[in-house]
Amino acid sequence: MRIIIDAMGGDRAPEEIVKGVAIATKKYDHDIVLVGNKPVIEDLLKEYEADTSKIEIVHTETVITMEDDPICVVRSKKDSSMSVGLNLLKTDGDAFVSAGNTGALHAGSSLIIRSVKGVQRSGIATILPFAKPILMMDCGANVNVTSNYLDQWAVMGSIYMKNVHGIETPTVGLLNNGTEEHKGTQIQIDAYKLLKDNANISFAGNIEGKELPFGPCDVIVTDGFTGNVTLKLLEGMGAFVFSALKDMFTQNAMTKLSFVAMKKQLKGFKKTFDASEYGGAPLLGLQKPVIKAHGSSDARAITNAINQAAKFVKTGVIDEIAAAMSVPKEADKE
Amino acid sequence: MRIIIDAMGGDRAPEEIVKGVAIATKKYDHDIVLVGNKPVIEDLLKEYEADTSKIEIVHTETVITMEDDPICVVRSKKDSSMSVGLNLLKTDGDAFVSAGNTGALHAGSSLIIRSVKGVQRSGIATILPFAKPILMMDCGANVNVTSNYLDQWAVMGSIYMKNVHGIETPTVGLLNNGTEEHKGTQIQIDAYKLLKDNANISFAGNIEGKELPFGPCDVIVTDGFTGNVTLKLLEGMGAFVFSALKDMFTQNAMTKLSFVAMKKQLKGFKKTFDASEYGGAPLLGLQKPVIKAHGSSDARAITNAINQAAKFVKTGVIDEIAAAMSVPKEADKE
Repeated sequence: MRIIIDAMGGDRAPEEIVKGVAIATKKYDHDIVLVGNKPVIEDLLKEYEADTSKIEIVHTETVITMEDDPICVVRSKKDSSMSVGLNLLKTDGDAFVSAGNTGALHAGSSLIIRSVKGVQRSGIATILPFAKPILMMDCGANVNVTSNYLDQWAVMGSIYMKNVHGIETPTVGLLNNGTEEHKGTQIQIDAYKLLKDNANISFAGNIEGKELPFGPCDVIVTDGFTGNVTLKLLEGMGAFVFSALKDMFTQNAMTKLSFVAMKKQLKGFKKTFDASEYGGAPLLGLQKPVIKAHGSSDARAITNAINQAAKFVKTGVIDEIAAAMSVPKEADKE
Repeated sequence: MRIIIDAMGGDRAPEEIVKGVAIATKKYDHDIVLVGNKPVIEDLLKEYEADTSKIEIVHTETVITMEDDPICVVRSKKDSSMSVGLNLLKTDGDAFVSAGNTGALHAGSSLIIRSVKGVQRSGIATILPFAKPILMMDCGANVNVTSNYLDQWAVMGSIYMKNVHGIETPTVGLLNNGTEEHKGTQIQIDAYKLLKDNANISFAGNIEGKELPFGPCDVIVTDGFTGNVTLKLLEGMGAFVFSALKDMFTQNAMTKLSFVAMKKQLKGFKKTFDASEYGGAPLLGLQKPVIKAHGSSDARAITNAINQAAKFVKTGVIDEIAAAMSVPKEADKE
């Protein structure tokens, strides 16, 4: 298996990316192609004692930054590590991992890798942690959606959770402003009907925001606007809670002692807020696996994303999505 | 001042509603009209030792439940406590407080009290707690919006926060999936331009979900769908965090001791998640003040909502909204 890594994308690139790859070469057996500044990568591989027999480096000098316009990936920055990586994936690769500019990664993937036949829109899914992992799709790639997109994402998300997370019959919820069938805008009302009649998924009905942290379903579908606000709100709440806890436990000698007594529990609690152990955010609906690692990914997150990419490839998610999308929707009901 | 209270609406009605009124009669000087089952209310007023010289009771037998279709407030349940209360507000009242069915309260208020001239849509605003109180509008009354609604809500929300919360120049944020000007759907893109050019507000730009708990602005405008998901997500995160903390602190003798040491801090932390000290959710854009108290309101929340209703009346929020809405928008730019 040949996994391509954007060595230059993300806030902590290239150090943490290369370090994550170095760890992966010791833990797993995949061939890795690192795309980025060759001399820098070589120095880092030496520093992190990577097994270089499994690593190939493709040199590039340009990097897409967080401020770049997404479309630059196929225009002014065609020679960037992300763009070169995506083209390598297309011609001779099994999966691509990048912690770089999300918009550029989605735009580049759509235009270079392209969607599976029958898929109306590819999108970005992400794992919400807390009580149990939930795959939320879309998370920002598509702010404007139709009910049909949501219906297709329910199928793709279910296939992903079954194959990559081993959940036999994933349940799918529709994020909504109430549990009743008539709730939401016309998009949610129509999507509810499609999802209820979709024989390829197990529909759990409308899900309200207050249920989300308690794991009410395995997949949740929503437009990319609401999904993005939701994702960032959960991130913000995590930051708020841990900053408040830190203040509380450092107030006086007694609270500092309590911190020592509670250290194990607090560590476990912090873990429930951390999605990075599940790897990155898979782009679903594309002809090849692309993983968006979090912009602030450290080496551990990158190693996890590499493992996730390998599972994504091995379990045949994309073939299964292609098979599901090639059946005309009407056939479900016959 | 004559404040009308729906004695029968909410999960803990009529007990906690009447108890809240009883406390209010001792703390404040307003005349209160309690609408609901007279014998039951009279017994409760006696039990809670209310100052009955300030209280009038209007007897009704019908109650709107959480399951009722909102429109029943002006059709099949015109004789309900909510409907009778709203009609009393119209003819001879200064403010109305109800912890009942939100949809019915908004529908009834729109149809019985009606909007201020020039207001395109009234809506429900609510206070988000955490680092500092933020008024979010809309929270579920209007799932479909235009950029003009958001622009008007920014003005109304600013007037409310200035008058009721004493913030001299409230800042207004637009909830969005990124900070850049071009982010969001066409509605957010257009709203950004309107808000930027609106001389009646202090625009703080686009606000992402992750900033919300840290108090990035005083007013945040969004469509009722996203607002409702956001509000309930914050509620759910609160429930999740406190359930996890409870588990952590009850694990063994050491953690139980830590709980004792941390009690004061934990109480303070819990308070940062509680919006009820700010009263209920004001309906803005109507010709008279209507307050939606939380469905699970206890006596303290009702007392706070009564105090909030009085401030709403006394500070002239509605006159100021009427004045702002009577000026054609174009005049701002001249």
